[in-house]
Amino acid sequence: MASTSTNLSALPTPAACTADFCLIPLGTPTASVSKEVAEVQRLLKKSGLNYSMHSAGTTVEGSWDEVMKVIGQCHAMLHENGVVRIQSDIRIGTRTDKKQGFKDKVEAVEKLLKADEDEDET
Amino acid sequence: MASTSTNLSALPTPAACTADFCLIPLGTPTASVSKEVAEVQRLLKKSGLNYSMHSAGTTVEGSWDEVMKVIGQCHAMLHENGVVRIQSDIRIGTRTDKKQGFKDKVEAVEKLLKADEDEDET
Amino acid sequence: MASTSTNLSALPTPAACTADFCLIPLGTPTASVSKEVAEVQRLLKKSGLNYSMHSAGTTVEGSWDEVMKVIGQCHAMLHENGVVRIQSDIRIGTRTDKKQGFKDKVEAVEKLLKADEDEDET
Amino acid sequence: MASTSTNLSALPTPAACTADFCLIPLGTPTASVSKEVAEVQRLLKKSGLNYSMHSAGTTVEGSWDEVMKVIGQCHAMLHENGVVRIQSDIRIGTRTDKKQGFKDKVEAVEKLLKADEDEDET
Repeated sequence: MASTSTNLSALPTPAACTADFCLIPLGTPTASVSKEVAEVQRLLKKSGLNYSMHSAGTTVEGSWDEVMKVIGQCHAMLHENGVVRIQSDIRIGTRTDKKQGFKDKVEAVEKLLKADEDEDET
Repeated sequence: MASTSTNLSALPTPAACTADFCLIPLGTPTASVSKEVAEVQRLLKKSGLNYSMHSAGTTVEGSWDEVMKVIGQCHAMLHENGVVRIQSDIRIGTRTDKKQGFKDKVEAVEKLLKADEDEDET
Repeated sequence: MASTSTNLSALPTPAACTADFCLIPLGTPTASVSKEVAEVQRLLKKSGLNYSMHSAGTTVEGSWDEVMKVIGQCHAMLHENGVVRIQSDIRIGTRTDKKQGFKDKVEAVEKLLKADEDEDET
Repeated sequence: MASTSTNLSALPTPAACTADFCLIPLGTPTASVSKEVAEVQRLLKKSGLNYSMHSAGTTVEGSWDEVMKVIGQCHAMLHENGVVRIQSDIRIGTRTDKKQGFKDKVEAVEKLLKADEDEDET
């Protein structure tokens, strides 16, 4: 079986990925997380990676290692700022069939929805 | 202990929530999901709920029951269209301290980031 | 197009699903969540649904409506207990190709792994 | 502001974390994922990290870098095996207040639930 003979140290991580993460600080005095989310945005800006915030998380693109490193640094930064516990939910996708940025994904769907409207108008 | 005496049938579900869901069809002929995501957007439009698509999911607001019902209907609709297996990741939040729409959350963070820029300019 | 004619009110939610949820209280005095997770387990026990706790969440089976209702009731119960904000991550799966309980899923994988061991022994 | 002066290259990733991931292959001929999940278990075994499979994912412990690397390698391995697209949901937690393995988390809750039973018996 192919996988049984996998040499783990020789196995790379994906060269490209899109991750969407929602980071939650626990045990903080208030239920608001906007201060922490703003810190995360500042850190992402410094990373040089392509990213985009929305109301339920932040999407970031790059190599697997770059993306995971910067999310880990977000945890480390907030710990340094005094947050004792952090939980993140990360949705991460990789594909080999094509190169697709996160904006392309929205456009592909919007193109399909636009066709509906054109149809409605006729 | 309070909870031990909870009468389950009398316990409501939250009157308001914000959910962000990412739906994935399994065992489909192609790796593309834009057709299914477009179907989901069409169904959400019919629901009358406030929603917003981004590259890693769709955010929808309403009562817990309304929101969960419509996400379940998305699954049912795609099953009717022939998708045999569907997996969704849902991030759902409820709060009692204030009423906050999903747009307010982004604005709260952007306001903090805007203050950085103003500072940089001085 | 099939979906365009979908009558939303006639569309059911799935009759069966498996959900795994991880509930996080925000703005609580401590970073520990074991008290809240225990409350959730007590509520699930009363629900009569099949469930199983693990270190990263709780898996529960039932109809879509039953499962989502009980998770919503977990939020409501903790709000009643004074938690002002709660965020849950829910992984939910539905399928039409076969009936599969959450224990069956683990067994299917373990059967494959067992075959490895048998091979090693020869 | 502390964070504004953060030197990104000097910022570490957390020394310890617990991650729970659910990996989904897209565009595969069947809706079954047990073959892929078994491959993931074999790879984790080789990694030497502490891990545990359950019906909705696999929990793995280690440093942030170790854990994220091995999950990335799972994606890479499945891509090598011909899966063109993979989506994972990762719940990852870090904390500075105490060292807690994933088994400790379950035990903390079970201890609270056990107290209920003792109370019932009296």
